[in-house]
Amino acid sequence: MPPVQYELIKECPRTKARAGILHTPHGSFETPIFMPVGTQATVKTMTPEEVRELGAGIILSNTYHLYLRPGSELVRQAGGLHRFMNWPHGILTDSGGYQVFSLGPLRKITEEGVQFKSHIDGSTHFFTPEKSMQIQMDLGADIAMAFDECPPYPAEFEYAKRSLEMTTRWAKRCQAAHTREDQALFGITQGGMHADLRRESARQLVDLDFPGYGIGGLSVGEPKPLMYEMLDVTVPELPKNKARYLMGVGSPDCLLEGVARGVDMFDCVLPTRVARNGLAFTTHGKVVIRNAEYARDFERLDPECDCYTCRNYSRAYLRHLYKAEEILVYRLLTIHNLHVLLNLMRNIRQAILEDRFVEYKKAFLDKYGQENHS
Amino acid sequence: MPPVQYELIKECPRTKARAGILHTPHGSFETPIFMPVGTQATVKTMTPEEVRELGAGIILSNTYHLYLRPGSELVRQAGGLHRFMNWPHGILTDSGGYQVFSLGPLRKITEEGVQFKSHIDGSTHFFTPEKSMQIQMDLGADIAMAFDECPPYPAEFEYAKRSLEMTTRWAKRCQAAHTREDQALFGITQGGMHADLRRESARQLVDLDFPGYGIGGLSVGEPKPLMYEMLDVTVPELPKNKARYLMGVGSPDCLLEGVARGVDMFDCVLPTRVARNGLAFTTHGKVVIRNAEYARDFERLDPECDCYTCRNYSRAYLRHLYKAEEILVYRLLTIHNLHVLLNLMRNIRQAILEDRFVEYKKAFLDKYGQENHS
Repeated sequence: MPPVQYELIKECPRTKARAGILHTPHGSFETPIFMPVGTQATVKTMTPEEVRELGAGIILSNTYHLYLRPGSELVRQAGGLHRFMNWPHGILTDSGGYQVFSLGPLRKITEEGVQFKSHIDGSTHFFTPEKSMQIQMDLGADIAMAFDECPPYPAEFEYAKRSLEMTTRWAKRCQAAHTREDQALFGITQGGMHADLRRESARQLVDLDFPGYGIGGLSVGEPKPLMYEMLDVTVPELPKNKARYLMGVGSPDCLLEGVARGVDMFDCVLPTRVARNGLAFTTHGKVVIRNAEYARDFERLDPECDCYTCRNYSRAYLRHLYKAEEILVYRLLTIHNLHVLLNLMRNIRQAILEDRFVEYKKAFLDKYGQENHS
Repeated sequence: MPPVQYELIKECPRTKARAGILHTPHGSFETPIFMPVGTQATVKTMTPEEVRELGAGIILSNTYHLYLRPGSELVRQAGGLHRFMNWPHGILTDSGGYQVFSLGPLRKITEEGVQFKSHIDGSTHFFTPEKSMQIQMDLGADIAMAFDECPPYPAEFEYAKRSLEMTTRWAKRCQAAHTREDQALFGITQGGMHADLRRESARQLVDLDFPGYGIGGLSVGEPKPLMYEMLDVTVPELPKNKARYLMGVGSPDCLLEGVARGVDMFDCVLPTRVARNGLAFTTHGKVVIRNAEYARDFERLDPECDCYTCRNYSRAYLRHLYKAEEILVYRLLTIHNLHVLLNLMRNIRQAILEDRFVEYKKAFLDKYGQENHS
């Protein structure tokens, strides 16, 4: 039996939304779930205890970054990533495929793998499916991801087709190379923005019988409705008894739309990254804390939020810290943004369990405001 | 009765060290005490709860910085500094005198006050004793400090003499201008590195009957033995029933030497500032965490320390975070360094109470290593 199992608890009768439990070697976590990103073995600005206290069960960490620094072999020596970073709960590592894709002109793709240059020192490296597996086995996350090729947006049909086929071949090589029994290996479906290719990729990956599936190559610059369309054609191909993970998605509206289409897992740097740029999600939309209008605004960031930040600090204080470039503000906004998303996921799950997901989704989006840009 | 009272509990029979309690409107705090610095209304990288949990009772915040940003009037509107920054315990504000002194060529001193240019935007400002009082009353700390003139090191006898006399005249103006009854105003003694002037300044200030005394103009670049000499001549002039505060001093060895000479209160940016530069105090001296020797060192930062950082993270992890410029490392090293100093003060107090301060001091310094540079 694979070390990670998805248990379906409840389906929404009117959408594809579902509530479940993801069982991993480091705990069982309620889904749908949002996974905060800890790129370099730390969720930026936060201690692991704080991340856990906000309700996060699984975090994502990055194969590409940890391979370059401090090196996956060092992490293995340290007793694995859980111990190295003091996070005894769930961890998922991406495969490095997306980061290498993001390097653009710094990388070169062949059937064997991808050659790329380090963003840190320009040194040349070569990732193959086998190499990605070795690194991820060294890191020792609960869930490893297959090494995929993520086509850019927009990508021609022919390119996206070749890419999905190579991704399938690479997925097989990943399965052959992956030998760690306390770690699950998830496949990643691709197919660009072409419905036929999305279906084809999903079918090929499902044939390989992974214990869970990432949906890759979305949130790469396409309009949101197009992303939703791709989800609409992909998710029905995936087995009901396995987790579905929409990679790199994390704005409140996309989380709701993803859940409605049957997604169980999400990750995104958005809540932590924008926090460091002084931007907060609130129930009434976004707040840019440096704005002069908040200079003497002694109210809380979000009147309806009960996170640590909102309970204890005013917008005026947060603005002061931001203008003064004080580290505390990056912490406080990160806490708030993660709370908003993790709390949203809890509320979504509760709504699914109580057969009122559709109403909850509508009420949330009416207040928050739709965002149709990607 | 002044709102801040010093209660003497126990004197060391062999040195001038003493244990006491400082009673303030926001709590009573055991002395000798180290006050972490929260320059811009935040102890850098830390939440107030974390600072308190480490054992800090009083923090210092800066008049000069808060006057420039966000403005003391705004802090008053927010309900005062305690509320603005979510710190319900003791606060002491400096007078701005030292910061203005530090600006060097950006300032011009007259009998009336000091004209200076902002380090933020170059705008021109004028601080007088009355202005410093107004700002500090707006901020609403438990303890305000008199506006003084801090001579540079080295300073000629004549300069230091004129400076101490002006500081006394300014101290009287501060007393006249200070009207807030829930806030104590401490005087600051000066006198450069001249024993006679140190005594003279202390006597003049004592005549003005402040409820507590800062010892200013030390730790400005002079050798440590010279600073200790100045303490030796200053402290005996100060009344036993009032707190003595050595300003801007915070290395472990200086804290021990200061306490031995009768000092009750200290503040310093050192533990928090050096933390952000990757430097940790340990019981065996300093550790520069970026050093390559720690890359695969999976031991704790200080084997004898039980702070949060030492309990949960290895040197290898801290080094990784530092190399990756992750904010968490600044937090973890700040926690550790503050713990070391606050724990040192607790141990010092306990040793005084148990008549073994001299032995404790020797044992600590033998292990830590003397630092004779300033």
